[in-house]
Amino acid sequence: MKKYSDMTLAERQTEYAAVKAAFEAKKTLGLQLNMARGKPGTDQLDMVTEMCNILVTHDDFVSDGIDSRNYGNVDGLPAAKKLFAELLGCKPAQVFVGGNASLQLMFTMIAMAYSHGLLHSEKPWKELEKVKWLCPAPGYDRHFKVSQYFGMELLTVPMTADGPDMDLVEELVKDPAVKGIWNVPKYSNPEGVVYSDETIRRMAALKPAAPDFMLMWDNAYCIHEFDCEFVPFADILALCEENGNADMVYEFASTSKVTFPGAGVGVMAASEANLAYVKPLINIQTIGFDKINQLRHVKYLQDKEHTLALMKRHAAILSPKFHAVLSALDAEIAPLGIADWKRPVGGYFVSLDAMPGTAKRTLALCKEAGVTMTGAGATFPYGIDPNDSNIRIAPTMPPVAELEQAIAVLCLCLRMSALEKLGI
Amino acid sequence: MKKYSDMTLAERQTEYAAVKAAFEAKKTLGLQLNMARGKPGTDQLDMVTEMCNILVTHDDFVSDGIDSRNYGNVDGLPAAKKLFAELLGCKPAQVFVGGNASLQLMFTMIAMAYSHGLLHSEKPWKELEKVKWLCPAPGYDRHFKVSQYFGMELLTVPMTADGPDMDLVEELVKDPAVKGIWNVPKYSNPEGVVYSDETIRRMAALKPAAPDFMLMWDNAYCIHEFDCEFVPFADILALCEENGNADMVYEFASTSKVTFPGAGVGVMAASEANLAYVKPLINIQTIGFDKINQLRHVKYLQDKEHTLALMKRHAAILSPKFHAVLSALDAEIAPLGIADWKRPVGGYFVSLDAMPGTAKRTLALCKEAGVTMTGAGATFPYGIDPNDSNIRIAPTMPPVAELEQAIAVLCLCLRMSALEKLGI
Repeated sequence: MKKYSDMTLAERQTEYAAVKAAFEAKKTLGLQLNMARGKPGTDQLDMVTEMCNILVTHDDFVSDGIDSRNYGNVDGLPAAKKLFAELLGCKPAQVFVGGNASLQLMFTMIAMAYSHGLLHSEKPWKELEKVKWLCPAPGYDRHFKVSQYFGMELLTVPMTADGPDMDLVEELVKDPAVKGIWNVPKYSNPEGVVYSDETIRRMAALKPAAPDFMLMWDNAYCIHEFDCEFVPFADILALCEENGNADMVYEFASTSKVTFPGAGVGVMAASEANLAYVKPLINIQTIGFDKINQLRHVKYLQDKEHTLALMKRHAAILSPKFHAVLSALDAEIAPLGIADWKRPVGGYFVSLDAMPGTAKRTLALCKEAGVTMTGAGATFPYGIDPNDSNIRIAPTMPPVAELEQAIAVLCLCLRMSALEKLGI
Repeated sequence: MKKYSDMTLAERQTEYAAVKAAFEAKKTLGLQLNMARGKPGTDQLDMVTEMCNILVTHDDFVSDGIDSRNYGNVDGLPAAKKLFAELLGCKPAQVFVGGNASLQLMFTMIAMAYSHGLLHSEKPWKELEKVKWLCPAPGYDRHFKVSQYFGMELLTVPMTADGPDMDLVEELVKDPAVKGIWNVPKYSNPEGVVYSDETIRRMAALKPAAPDFMLMWDNAYCIHEFDCEFVPFADILALCEENGNADMVYEFASTSKVTFPGAGVGVMAASEANLAYVKPLINIQTIGFDKINQLRHVKYLQDKEHTLALMKRHAAILSPKFHAVLSALDAEIAPLGIADWKRPVGGYFVSLDAMPGTAKRTLALCKEAGVTMTGAGATFPYGIDPNDSNIRIAPTMPPVAELEQAIAVLCLCLRMSALEKLGI
């Protein structure tokens, strides 16, 4: 195969005709394939479903003398705090165990800053003329949308192989209107970047002008290696504390991709001072989260060792799916020189950069052939990719056979849109 | 026994000495009894615990083709909507099924009005100089606290035997700053009042000046009869619609006192137009609520008939507890003429009005003797009972034997504080 950029017009036309014919053939199959969202596959869910029946007798429902079935304990069961503290490497007293969605805890914290202010806020953010927020991109669309919901101005920070561009971050936080930054520090969404030690150190040592700057640390994939051994990761809470920033950081995690996406447990880790401020305010909206489900998780996951063993079993299911994507791209696209992609070893996505100006067209073609992908631009603030290039591939949900079909379609669409861009 | 008000000073002094001696004797028992919160008892929880293991096989977790274990369906499983629509008497399309706490849905709706405004809002409430809210009192402290959280001015509306004073409500809603009213229309918290048909009709027909007035209809005890057959109740959504107020009403309910207080299912019912507005905004904070738990409830409760049968079994446990409270009050307090109380046939509380100016003192004495009660004033806006009279008794949690001890202590404390008030 020849690089498309090296082809003559005539060669491109011949190639386009062939690719288009293959594409039209795919269309006749009436495919309905989905690589849009980072959903675990059914086999992963079946694997953990036994946990639903782990609590049976009266005594099973009691933990540290607390009846998990009744009201109370807004910050979660002590046993659940202990489990998540071990997984995150922080202290149990720094853990707030919530409901089934860590996103809801993130939203709750920003909503609190908005209506009431945080521990070190001078005033509630709703009273500020302008609130700006740093969005490393490509990043997670749902993060950006929470910031948008509260009317913030989103500032894009480019991602590098080591994490967000820290020179830029350090510069931007000198503006007191900059109130926070989103991070997925391990296996970032979508690129699978693991922040380097240097990036983490600089994050913890930030000196923001805003006294209530929020270092949002969404450690969504903290134990989600699929192609390597567990990679130990810094305790951001301790690092921030060492740098005099104990109350700057809010870490989040969940079992959405450990147990159940719809019925896992979400947690927040923050300084004890922050939690003391936060608890009575969260208590206004709820008497407590689902402690039975917390206890199911405690009994099923047990500790870090057992949890990592479970993650190995997830990895055994996930790894072939990622390899199927990467193999197809290596075989079908690499020789043509029309796209680059990351080779993640953890997380839930493969991030692909198509030829600039072709992402939207590629995904429109995919849709035409029955393959649903994350919308073009979704990984950028306001849903606008300035290069119209980034495509997020979510290969975890479909079985391998379906995935191979879907990725074959994607490859054809990448080729068509590249040829159209180059001229045919 | 003689009425305290008919006693001479000397008689009161003799009586006080006797009551105080009995009180001091109770103190030596080192009691630790709690009648503070409307918590179901352990026997009630044990009764329903089998539901935790009702989903076992792969297929059990699939409902209408939806895998309850995975992401999605922010407004809940269709089967759960159907169940709650049947219980509330509304349409499935009017139901939003949430997480474990209906309070969180109420909070979410008011937070939404605050930051974004509702369907018919002219602007977000945070931009308004003043927001006022009607609080029928005595009422539910957690309702009042949500309003306070968002900086509202709380206006007290006296409760009558038929519900809130509707003449006053109709007058107050002429003020465009009045944006809503809290209601627990069936077995109100704490008085157990069932709103009369006339009250409900007038509520549904309100003509508030505010276009985004919220009729908050917390039907927390919609099927919670403990001393009579199920009492059919009007569908407030249909009534509001008939009165041209389709989008004014937000109804809430939960299974917190049907299945598990910590792990039930909370729902909101509202017009389809309201839900269409609300869904994408709630979707910003969560991808979806716990659908596995929704499905457990669907399979366990099945339908209205089965659910009402379960409520009969709850009633069999609860009824003796309420009778223990009422019998003690009838025997010990009624002849003395120092308090009045309601005789509820549903709900979770007995509301007692002590001699004005003695509620705080009574509860302080209870605490001294090891009996924890809901704080005096809690049932009024800002936690201030203007008469220092209302006491909320929550008899559901303690076993009957403990409850009898606790209520005996309460009776002694009521007598002491009344005698102190009358002069000794």
